[in-house]
Amino acid sequence: MKVVGIIAEYNPFHKGHEYQIRYAREILGADYIVIAMSGDFVQRGAPALMEKHLRAEMALLGGANLILEMPVQTATASAEGFAAGGVSLLDGLGVVDELCFGSECGDTETLMNIAQILVKEPFEYRKLLQQNLRTGMSFPAARSSALIRYMREKATSVHNTFGVSSEHIELILSSPNNILGIEYCKALLRLNSRILPHALLRKGSGYHDTDFSLLSDEEFPSASGIRSLMKKSEGTVQSADLSRLIPSASLPGFLDSLKKGAWLSDSVLDLPLHYKLLLESEETLKMYPELSDALIRRILKSRNQYEGFSQFADLLKTRDITRSAICRSLVQIFLDQKTKAPGHIPYARVLGFQKNSAPFLRQIKKNSSIPLITKAADASAILDETALRFFNETCAASNLYEMLLCHKTGQPFIHEMKKPLRII
Amino acid sequence: MKVVGIIAEYNPFHKGHEYQIRYAREILGADYIVIAMSGDFVQRGAPALMEKHLRAEMALLGGANLILEMPVQTATASAEGFAAGGVSLLDGLGVVDELCFGSECGDTETLMNIAQILVKEPFEYRKLLQQNLRTGMSFPAARSSALIRYMREKATSVHNTFGVSSEHIELILSSPNNILGIEYCKALLRLNSRILPHALLRKGSGYHDTDFSLLSDEEFPSASGIRSLMKKSEGTVQSADLSRLIPSASLPGFLDSLKKGAWLSDSVLDLPLHYKLLLESEETLKMYPELSDALIRRILKSRNQYEGFSQFADLLKTRDITRSAICRSLVQIFLDQKTKAPGHIPYARVLGFQKNSAPFLRQIKKNSSIPLITKAADASAILDETALRFFNETCAASNLYEMLLCHKTGQPFIHEMKKPLRII
Repeated sequence: MKVVGIIAEYNPFHKGHEYQIRYAREILGADYIVIAMSGDFVQRGAPALMEKHLRAEMALLGGANLILEMPVQTATASAEGFAAGGVSLLDGLGVVDELCFGSECGDTETLMNIAQILVKEPFEYRKLLQQNLRTGMSFPAARSSALIRYMREKATSVHNTFGVSSEHIELILSSPNNILGIEYCKALLRLNSRILPHALLRKGSGYHDTDFSLLSDEEFPSASGIRSLMKKSEGTVQSADLSRLIPSASLPGFLDSLKKGAWLSDSVLDLPLHYKLLLESEETLKMYPELSDALIRRILKSRNQYEGFSQFADLLKTRDITRSAICRSLVQIFLDQKTKAPGHIPYARVLGFQKNSAPFLRQIKKNSSIPLITKAADASAILDETALRFFNETCAASNLYEMLLCHKTGQPFIHEMKKPLRII
Repeated sequence: MKVVGIIAEYNPFHKGHEYQIRYAREILGADYIVIAMSGDFVQRGAPALMEKHLRAEMALLGGANLILEMPVQTATASAEGFAAGGVSLLDGLGVVDELCFGSECGDTETLMNIAQILVKEPFEYRKLLQQNLRTGMSFPAARSSALIRYMREKATSVHNTFGVSSEHIELILSSPNNILGIEYCKALLRLNSRILPHALLRKGSGYHDTDFSLLSDEEFPSASGIRSLMKKSEGTVQSADLSRLIPSASLPGFLDSLKKGAWLSDSVLDLPLHYKLLLESEETLKMYPELSDALIRRILKSRNQYEGFSQFADLLKTRDITRSAICRSLVQIFLDQKTKAPGHIPYARVLGFQKNSAPFLRQIKKNSSIPLITKAADASAILDETALRFFNETCAASNLYEMLLCHKTGQPFIHEMKKPLRII
């Protein structure tokens, strides 16, 4: 039995994601494909476009066997924390053989080599990095340059480990999916995991235009392009356009949500985040473990100029912190999320599975080092105090998402504990 | 120098209010008229229709000399707490001679007599009240019946104190403004205040229809009728209609706010109150001093059926608690208001005054037992810790009101500390 794991947001699930699952099935020969998926809030620091159960269902219809929810603390953590969380979750199942992730390079070996260096931090590498930082380089630039020099020097030594050019390394380090891939490799190395990494070459990954009529059959849409299209058109996207982007099996669910208005952009946070910021004080802001003192000062100094979530993120932006990191912090405040992202994920919450995956679920129950939660209401009996805190905060985040959705659509509120698993 | 005080909400300021000020000036002979006014949240448990500085300005243009803001804890307290707060504020100035309040009966003496009994609670009265309560009567009915019997028995004794019929007392106790008037009298008695009560007979007080074309020249509109009209028409009221209701001097400011959409109904709380309720737990709800354990249980039990502020207030309603009391509790939660209403108001915050009132302000400064705050930013230097807590919570409430207003109108947020006094 071969099991392939994927760490994903599916925000939303599109044809590129379907291609990755087909690749895992057909090329990697997966018997079962398990997804560690972000819940209702995502890593760029925003509510997901559509709610997690629907996204899970779309992925199941797109070929995945089992969808697990990443706890909200890791789903909204930095790339490093996000990757560590996803890898830990898949590793904890005890049955995953391979981790398949998209990358701009498709070069698993080099990504692993870079990850090795970053995890081990050999003395020579650290010296180069510090030299670079002293010249005033930004951290990513300093790291990239130190890695290139370190690998070049090693490559000319007797043990030629890194037979790649500087340009190749530089190119790898300038692409977001490669960088995330390196984080996955780092997490696998740190866990000493038996899971093997597999970097899939992304097709059409650069396509961020919202005019999808220009999309060729060789290219895949980007999730961010689809989200922009939704926001720009205020949800009035033509289903003909969407059928180019969303896999046909998943399309009806997507269109149904669209019809109901059941999708969110980050502007839904405009009022409630303002409200939350006005309720906070320096003392209460210090209770968020991921907020730096510098950011707390900036928030307190700037909050009277608040006009909306996106405008406020721009206002807080400095040279030292990415806009995504700021958005994540603001989302953490909105969610009242006061628990630090766990390094080790202590449970596997099932959002949905394919009916034919019963043998796979039995296998997980036999092998996993963490409990599998199929019924949310059982969590309090199964989990220890720390794990239950992660779980409860994740449920609370989903209730807040549901609240935002209900106020947009007028639908009645359904508590997270009452939402059924998706079984297809 | 004769000074008349009025306790009011001016939600909004209308021709009936203007009439009361003219009455105080012409009939009572007031040299100066000072108003203790609710700020941005009012006693029925809702945001005020329009913001407090505008309402203060309208009242100044309508003839008042000085507008003071009641702290939010008393403005959103029960009728008893509201009356006690307003009376304490006026009493603290040391210059007010008479308190003029509207009533359905216009019978100051009887209101005072009833208040005397309720404050002193003579043994015979208490016995009658408890007898009634034991039969299962509601508290208001039990109190009314006990008062009538007690006063009738006293009236047939040698010292005939209460020469009024049972019907008159029953009628008095069945009208909201009389009941509030009794609360004012109770507060004056309890403070042993030198301020004399004066119950003004309300004209057209029963007019709650929103079709103001039927309003005769003898009648005054009700503030609740105007609010309903605003809500029903979503603010598209004709200025010709409004000129029948709002005094002409105050009308331009009102119309200007209307044009900008700068007015609120309680439905603006729908989303943020839902959000706040989802952030609360039993533990945090217990930190609100005015919330009963029974109401906390009901809130926690019902919050998953929340659809909006008004619907939720209906849902929480029981035989034992009025809808207004529930709305006040919900507003206290929205405002994160964890300080109990003060029995004694420790400062007088000025919202605005008429230029020609300078001698009056000097007189207050000489006589008052509490500091007069004309500049919000000075409060922290002037007030002790407890007083500052009342003040800061009141400012925080206004900032939340401003936030709601800004999100409705798109206007930039102006912090409470930056809002100028209204001087006309």
